[in-house]
Amino acid sequence: MEKRGLLYEGKAKKIFSTTDEFTVWIEYKDSATAFNGEKKETIEGKGRLNNLITSLLFTSLKEKGIESHFIKQVSDYEQLVKRVEIIPLEVVVRNIAAGSLAKRIGWEEGTPLKSPIVEFYYKDDDLGDPLLTVDHIEQLELASVEELKTLKEMGLKVNTILQELFNEVGIQLVDFKLEFGKDVDGKILLADEISPDTCRLWDKETGQKLDKDVFRRDLGSLTDVYSIILTKLGGPQHV
Amino acid sequence: MEKRGLLYEGKAKKIFSTTDEFTVWIEYKDSATAFNGEKKETIEGKGRLNNLITSLLFTSLKEKGIESHFIKQVSDYEQLVKRVEIIPLEVVVRNIAAGSLAKRIGWEEGTPLKSPIVEFYYKDDDLGDPLLTVDHIEQLELASVEELKTLKEMGLKVNTILQELFNEVGIQLVDFKLEFGKDVDGKILLADEISPDTCRLWDKETGQKLDKDVFRRDLGSLTDVYSIILTKLGGPQHV
Ligand SMILES: Nc1ncnc2c1ncn2[C@@H]1O[C@H](COP(=O)(O)OP(=O)(O)O)[C@@H](O)[C@H]1O
Ligand SMILES: Nc1ncnc2c1ncn2[C@@H]1O[C@H](COP(=O)(O)OP(=O)(O)O)[C@@H](O)[C@H]1O
Ligand SMILES: [Mg+2]
Ligand SMILES: [Mg+2]
Repeated sequence: MEKRGLLYEGKAKKIFSTTDEFTVWIEYKDSATAFNGEKKETIEGKGRLNNLITSLLFTSLKEKGIESHFIKQVSDYEQLVKRVEIIPLEVVVRNIAAGSLAKRIGWEEGTPLKSPIVEFYYKDDDLGDPLLTVDHIEQLELASVEELKTLKEMGLKVNTILQELFNEVGIQLVDFKLEFGKDVDGKILLADEISPDTCRLWDKETGQKLDKDVFRRDLGSLTDVYSIILTKLGGPQHV
Repeated sequence: MEKRGLLYEGKAKKIFSTTDEFTVWIEYKDSATAFNGEKKETIEGKGRLNNLITSLLFTSLKEKGIESHFIKQVSDYEQLVKRVEIIPLEVVVRNIAAGSLAKRIGWEEGTPLKSPIVEFYYKDDDLGDPLLTVDHIEQLELASVEELKTLKEMGLKVNTILQELFNEVGIQLVDFKLEFGKDVDGKILLADEISPDTCRLWDKETGQKLDKDVFRRDLGSLTDVYSIILTKLGGPQHV
């Protein structure tokens, strides 16, 4: 398998085609962005950490029966994945009120939810990734009601697996964002990344934030806390 | 039935208790507010127009089988209604993209929807009346899933009736907001008001806005356009 031309450059990753039309090559970037790109910085080593963490998590998820785009990690910054057509929805699963949910429903950040909830946001930077209801998604024809059921079910299953995984290493999984895509056969696969960029992770003892909120809220070194996550998940200790 | 003490004063109406504990007396105010109370004005005659229009519409809806709080109009500014416990949700039904929906999904104002949609907003001024999903409403325990189904069904039924009613007099029903409450037996009744304050109404021929957007967007005399609505609905012509 060889890397070919750049297909798409996003805020956090570059996607390249390969010699196999059903496979793409993902390169993680050393850039951090927040607030829909308003806050932006280059952070050396961030791409490697997210690549390694995502590779570890997708591997664990595959072992527990979650079908995803992940094929294999090919270097510190790169991985091979199945090419999918991304469903333009950010599927957010939450266990504890934080961020926009805390603001929306007026609950203090840190309030546990009675049961996990799943939200759908429109993956559209120009519109600011707005929250969508099932009715909106039907209007926009982004996914069928049946597909939304699958996304919700898969999201909750991923949540159960990741909660256990993080819990074992002393971390609370507050919330996270997933993306899904359809492969060449129309099958829905978990795609994109799962990293401290896309999760809220709090130390169970100290409450320390071990995720992108460190960057969003200027709470210290992003790579320091992402390294803690990688190490706790059993990844390599040194760059 | 006699009017007693003030129970609650909102932005558009005052609610008084009566000598019957299951009945309240509503007095419509001559005040217009928008953008969560940021824009505010006294407009003489507005309360009367909304009282008369609401009374006409609730009467028509009752004839078509919609159970509501409405008992009777008692004066130009007042009506008697059944006392209910308001469910703190604004139930918005839409036929054409406008306002916040047009912004949210990136459609031009005036784009017809493929089918009517129903949205739920949290009736909470401090939070800015945010959009809620079914999952949020369950978390907040504002209504059960069964009750939400009833609200959606009633909303769509009201829509069908009002669309026909307005259509017959040359007006397009773009969208509107309903409130529901539970009576002493726990039965869900349509409550609050239905007026140009709570609907978007466009002249079918000219596209002229005949609703509160005239106030929100400074498009002319609010009482002039509310009077057009009252007259078209067959109400009395003069103050
Ligand atoms: N398996 C895949 N096939 C095709 N595209 C993918 C796959 N996995 C992720 N993507 C997409 O790659 C793009 C680049 O990722 P990223 O830099 O995170 O973008 P963004 O700026 O949109 O967040 C995103 O649009 C993402 O949805
Ligand atoms: N039948 C009813 N019984 C009790 N309260 C009602 C009834 N109908 C409407 N209300 C409530 O009366 C209040 C006053 O109305 P309004 O001035 O429109 O208030 P707001 O400023 O909240 O929009 C609102 O909270 C509304 O929900
Ligand atoms: Mg991304
Ligand atoms: Mg009101």
